[in-house]
Amino acid sequence: MKLPTKVKLVDVGPRDGLQNEKEPVPAEVKIRLVHMLQDAGLKEIEVTSFVSPKWVPQMGDNAEVMAGIHRKPGVRYSVLVPNMKGLEAALASKPDEIVVFGAASEAFSQKNINCSIAESIERFAPVVEGARAKGIYVRGAISTTVGCPYEGDIAPSRVELVAKLMKEIGVQHIGVADTIGVGTPKKVQAAMEAALKHYAIDDVSGHFHDTYGQALVNTMACLEMGIWQFDSSVAGLGGCPYAKGATGNVATEDVVYMLQGLGVDTGIDLDKLIDAGKYISDFLQRKPNSRAATALLNKRAG
Amino acid sequence: MKLPTKVKLVDVGPRDGLQNEKEPVPAEVKIRLVHMLQDAGLKEIEVTSFVSPKWVPQMGDNAEVMAGIHRKPGVRYSVLVPNMKGLEAALASKPDEIVVFGAASEAFSQKNINCSIAESIERFAPVVEGARAKGIYVRGAISTTVGCPYEGDIAPSRVELVAKLMKEIGVQHIGVADTIGVGTPKKVQAAMEAALKHYAIDDVSGHFHDTYGQALVNTMACLEMGIWQFDSSVAGLGGCPYAKGATGNVATEDVVYMLQGLGVDTGIDLDKLIDAGKYISDFLQRKPNSRAATALLNKRAG
Repeated sequence: MKLPTKVKLVDVGPRDGLQNEKEPVPAEVKIRLVHMLQDAGLKEIEVTSFVSPKWVPQMGDNAEVMAGIHRKPGVRYSVLVPNMKGLEAALASKPDEIVVFGAASEAFSQKNINCSIAESIERFAPVVEGARAKGIYVRGAISTTVGCPYEGDIAPSRVELVAKLMKEIGVQHIGVADTIGVGTPKKVQAAMEAALKHYAIDDVSGHFHDTYGQALVNTMACLEMGIWQFDSSVAGLGGCPYAKGATGNVATEDVVYMLQGLGVDTGIDLDKLIDAGKYISDFLQRKPNSRAATALLNKRAG
Repeated sequence: MKLPTKVKLVDVGPRDGLQNEKEPVPAEVKIRLVHMLQDAGLKEIEVTSFVSPKWVPQMGDNAEVMAGIHRKPGVRYSVLVPNMKGLEAALASKPDEIVVFGAASEAFSQKNINCSIAESIERFAPVVEGARAKGIYVRGAISTTVGCPYEGDIAPSRVELVAKLMKEIGVQHIGVADTIGVGTPKKVQAAMEAALKHYAIDDVSGHFHDTYGQALVNTMACLEMGIWQFDSSVAGLGGCPYAKGATGNVATEDVVYMLQGLGVDTGIDLDKLIDAGKYISDFLQRKPNSRAATALLNKRAG
């Protein structure tokens, strides 16, 4: 089993996780969560999004949150940006990275961002150009790369097409997401191979949801391909809006537990990460949605 | 990724799962569960144990359950047997297979079965001989092969020793169990390699707990070694007595979902399996402890 020696995890909890809470979480809580994540050793945190608060009120405090973070050297702070208006607002808060988000499924693109895939690329082009002109790194997230709640299975050729289009407009890194968690290892590898036709292995990351319990095994399948960058969400924050009561993002704790056991360096202190997950879970008055966190918290309790 | 084309799952829910319920489950419910599992396509079911009801009152109805099952041709019904007294009782109920259970950890052996590893092997020897004399297949379960709640990490050499001892007394198949779910892929592979020094690949199975969320990724690591037999538990029945509130046996539904996605034949109808898991979960007044089952039940509900 040949695996990368190092893995970089991007914790998307503050954004992708807390965006799914009905009640917006106060800025001070988000800021404290970001501080706890960087103290735990996370090297990149997806902090917030600059989508209109009309659509996503949960992220309406984006500028306040970005301004409130005591930035730690060596940590990257990324934000989601949907359009030029979002970019302008985002630039003022000085992110290290912006994320544009498209889909491999036409139906999902229409429902999620109200435009076709082609239109989304047109919309992203000036955003990417504007960000790169300021020296800001641009990541492109491609959702529904394995399956779509409206279209079902998604062919790898669809992923390849979106990767190609993103490459053409200057997106520097792509995140291949199994948004509804239906993927299994071979299907995920096929989606990744499609992305790798246009991006180098160092410029591709995986983003898995644990809806069907497959997130770690899909992560492992990517590790075996040499992919070493993944999104995850502390305490498994973020439900699945397409399957009520189901698990959302894979928990950072579960990924770190696995990688530690494999001897792969993440730079993350699992105990401190558990603390961060417990902090936000306590605030949300629920248990962490992470099996490793649950087991380790039980162990702490004796 | 080279994988076996076929996988055999042994559902241990009726025994390993329901044994962990505080309130004994009525025999008729167990029988119905077994019927639903065989209808779903399971080819082996661990039905009950012939341990003294003084120790395990939950299995006190062992003979009644075994007698109540309408056996389906091609399905194997296995039972746990701790000693000669248990074997005599078990033989009367005509199992296809008996399971003796030892441990790779001395401390766990003492706490779980009140004797040393060496003593357990001595105790099993006449049981194995007695069963084989009647043409009954004998499986040996080795618990705590990766980690032990009392001793911590377990060296693969300890697994190898117990495998060797079991081989010497005529045990035909060994199940390598990560009883407390602490294993990760490389550690599990090391335990399996140790077992494979004394048993052929067709005579070894994996038994994983999902306490730390690692069961599927450990299953995958075994599949990549060519191992094709695994225990699992419908609806994830069975908690973890060493970590309160934590997940126990890997859910059969999660394993089957993964294998279907990989194109590996299990002979199991996932929809019928979900029904079986829902039946017993409803009886126990809880949700199935399976992410795939949760997602698919949500999907059914629309």
